[in-house]
Amino acid sequence: MTNALRITVWNENVHEREDSEVAALYPSGIHGAIAEGLRDLLPEATVSTATLEEPEHGLTEDRLAETDVLFWWGHGAHDAVDEAIVERVAERVLAGMGLVVLHSGHFSRIFIRLMGTTCSLSWRDDGDRELLWTVAPGHPIAEGVPDPLVVPAHETYGEFFDVPAPEELIFVSNFSGGEVFRSGLTYRRGRGRIFYFSPGDQKYPIYQQPDIRRVLANAAEWARPEGERAIPTVTNRPRGWFEG
Amino acid sequence: MTNALRITVWNENVHEREDSEVAALYPSGIHGAIAEGLRDLLPEATVSTATLEEPEHGLTEDRLAETDVLFWWGHGAHDAVDEAIVERVAERVLAGMGLVVLHSGHFSRIFIRLMGTTCSLSWRDDGDRELLWTVAPGHPIAEGVPDPLVVPAHETYGEFFDVPAPEELIFVSNFSGGEVFRSGLTYRRGRGRIFYFSPGDQKYPIYQQPDIRRVLANAAEWARPEGERAIPTVTNRPRGWFEG
Amino acid sequence: MTNALRITVWNENVHEREDSEVAALYPSGIHGAIAEGLRDLLPEATVSTATLEEPEHGLTEDRLAETDVLFWWGHGAHDAVDEAIVERVAERVLAGMGLVVLHSGHFSRIFIRLMGTTCSLSWRDDGDRELLWTVAPGHPIAEGVPDPLVVPAHETYGEFFDVPAPEELIFVSNFSGGEVFRSGLTYRRGRGRIFYFSPGDQKYPIYQQPDIRRVLANAAEWARPEGERAIPTVTNRPRGWFEG
Amino acid sequence: MTNALRITVWNENVHEREDSEVAALYPSGIHGAIAEGLRDLLPEATVSTATLEEPEHGLTEDRLAETDVLFWWGHGAHDAVDEAIVERVAERVLAGMGLVVLHSGHFSRIFIRLMGTTCSLSWRDDGDRELLWTVAPGHPIAEGVPDPLVVPAHETYGEFFDVPAPEELIFVSNFSGGEVFRSGLTYRRGRGRIFYFSPGDQKYPIYQQPDIRRVLANAAEWARPEGERAIPTVTNRPRGWFEG
Repeated sequence: MTNALRITVWNENVHEREDSEVAALYPSGIHGAIAEGLRDLLPEATVSTATLEEPEHGLTEDRLAETDVLFWWGHGAHDAVDEAIVERVAERVLAGMGLVVLHSGHFSRIFIRLMGTTCSLSWRDDGDRELLWTVAPGHPIAEGVPDPLVVPAHETYGEFFDVPAPEELIFVSNFSGGEVFRSGLTYRRGRGRIFYFSPGDQKYPIYQQPDIRRVLANAAEWARPEGERAIPTVTNRPRGWFEG
Repeated sequence: MTNALRITVWNENVHEREDSEVAALYPSGIHGAIAEGLRDLLPEATVSTATLEEPEHGLTEDRLAETDVLFWWGHGAHDAVDEAIVERVAERVLAGMGLVVLHSGHFSRIFIRLMGTTCSLSWRDDGDRELLWTVAPGHPIAEGVPDPLVVPAHETYGEFFDVPAPEELIFVSNFSGGEVFRSGLTYRRGRGRIFYFSPGDQKYPIYQQPDIRRVLANAAEWARPEGERAIPTVTNRPRGWFEG
Repeated sequence: MTNALRITVWNENVHEREDSEVAALYPSGIHGAIAEGLRDLLPEATVSTATLEEPEHGLTEDRLAETDVLFWWGHGAHDAVDEAIVERVAERVLAGMGLVVLHSGHFSRIFIRLMGTTCSLSWRDDGDRELLWTVAPGHPIAEGVPDPLVVPAHETYGEFFDVPAPEELIFVSNFSGGEVFRSGLTYRRGRGRIFYFSPGDQKYPIYQQPDIRRVLANAAEWARPEGERAIPTVTNRPRGWFEG
Repeated sequence: MTNALRITVWNENVHEREDSEVAALYPSGIHGAIAEGLRDLLPEATVSTATLEEPEHGLTEDRLAETDVLFWWGHGAHDAVDEAIVERVAERVLAGMGLVVLHSGHFSRIFIRLMGTTCSLSWRDDGDRELLWTVAPGHPIAEGVPDPLVVPAHETYGEFFDVPAPEELIFVSNFSGGEVFRSGLTYRRGRGRIFYFSPGDQKYPIYQQPDIRRVLANAAEWARPEGERAIPTVTNRPRGWFEG
């Protein structure tokens, strides 16, 4: 009845090319691993990838017009993302396209642009165990996800995470070093839906983990647009235009 | 300019009378320790106490009419609190009285009555270190509170905490055993404000801790009523009653 | 892939039997009109009805176990609904069953039980034109609904509507007499989802209106449970139970 | 005990100089009328004004450092506000300064910067009667404000207002032409608080109205910073830094 979900996974794809350890973990790139998980769990979806080095970062008008949900992974090359492309993506989100921002994407231009805050946080790369606890059971993004979801070793992200208070808080993480982090957050902006999910760092095999893949697949389905896609615009209508 | 804040600290006062270890920690009762802290930090406030064994649990109509903010500590004797008194307190809250519910008060009749959910949670009494992280810096309840606030040893409370999504999430706790807990939550119900704060268990010297006392004092000031106190009621007014 | 949606439409069914004008508007009862609309728009769903006069008000344990989403219409007979049945329904909602509360159901025992507030409002039966404006475009409940949705004549409901601040505000109504009303509100309680929708009064042909039926069908799909259904309970697990 | 509140009222001050009708309504400028009301109701506060044509728009680093709450009125000259000044104000807000955005300021660069959305709406200048209904009684911004607050004639603002869902919805407006508008909205961003209030248009004597002045004074007190002012920043601390 509903059309097939069209997903684009965007990745800066820098660590994988410059760091052999990351390349070993993610031989087809972080985007490749994410796409693989989505294809596996959402067999009816169309999943493609795009990276920084492509023309227009692979995010042409045509590509975005055919994307229902965009995943975003970036870290070291946020500043290399063209402002015009950021604005293009922002307008698409406000018009209804879903956006899933991952891990160090908290500092991406697109996320800061849409949140309006610094999006800063505390961090420490120390191999902590991370436990993601579900605080919104019954939410579609938590469906089928173990509670807690255990990440054996990971970079630590801690509060204060300077984002607007989320509309829905789905996951909260405990790190073995003592930190907590709001690790699964939803927002609506314009007609679009945004999900921020804090795993996973490039040095750890996060996106191979089945439970993490389940969250990403759930998020893709949750973030898909409802109805028409159109950016909200100012209108000036005559009195009683809605009558008759 | 504003009138002095009038606080009533309610406690079931059972453990202190039946358990010598609790009595040693809280020789003037948990209510006594809480009241002492409030008096110390809010010298202009009027702070009194009330307990389960008093007539009408010490919560007469007159007493509540003279209470701006009510603190509530209960644990083993929730069922001994008269339903009529619970309803009386609920109506006062809806009319504007502030309510601060502490620790095991999550299972009190008044809290369940106002939340509408089971208010269940997971727990383990194992002496975990609890760290309360501030996720709403700039909120008056977090003012002057260290981040994190360290409780060296405490009973563990864990998610899922079955309460409505809070209007403001102020603190999130990390327990050394791996749990997280939304430990400082605000709600508005009717004209009244409610703050739930999860420390402290009767077996630990929580309410002597200066940082904890700071939170309680901040909460008292935050929860005080604004303007008139009146329970919302149904009204049936003629067309255009607001004109002229 | 997903199972067929099972809907039960509950109605006190009093006006229709006692007031010939209402009976003329709703010859098969308000529940009948609502069910007809749901069947029309959700042909794969199973839609049944239940009324006050049936044994256990038609809401037996078995019936509720087989209900994904319960609609509730009541007005003059709220007090005739057995408290034990109210509690049974509340527990089902907390375990995941969706609940859609309609119009004068704001004063039903089940709604007050789950909200914790008085649920009072202002009203005037004066045949005002009601315009429902969408303030959450892109939300599934607003999908395919005209903006504004015009109800030519209706009972007026006005603020202050004493409910908890909704998690999502979907519709806001303008009445020609000058009032406003938050007319489409969502809540999550436990594992369940609740939608309050303020149309329609028994004296007006609201539930025959296609746009209103669209909202009800959308709400049914939105409120359906995700995953397992289980009421949240207290747990006491050993340290590190989630490991290994 | 608390320091005197320091308020700066910023206005583009264009209509008043170019349009004789506006000049007649606001002989000391819109900023002058707002400042007058604040001085009258908050006699202990320090209220100053700043306008577009001043060097750095009157919003120097020093001036902002001495401002607790900034009011913002703009309409035709949004594009004339320097981006560097916008960023300077945004950083101050994230560090704790309060911001009250008025009427057509919805399209100001600073508001769009902080909201992340288009901030578009529908409008019609037709002299509608506007009624502002309080949907958060007990909130400090609504304290002492009549319910409804009647504006005899005003420009109409209507939904959809493309802003993030507010953290608190305080006022909802009914316009006699049939529109509704979420007219009083609160947000927290970083450590700062933001209040958007939709009255008043330059062609109407809105800011002379005592009830409107009461809202503005309440908002100033509500938005004042708590505790230290510092923009959230990324931190990288060693394991266990919070111990000992």
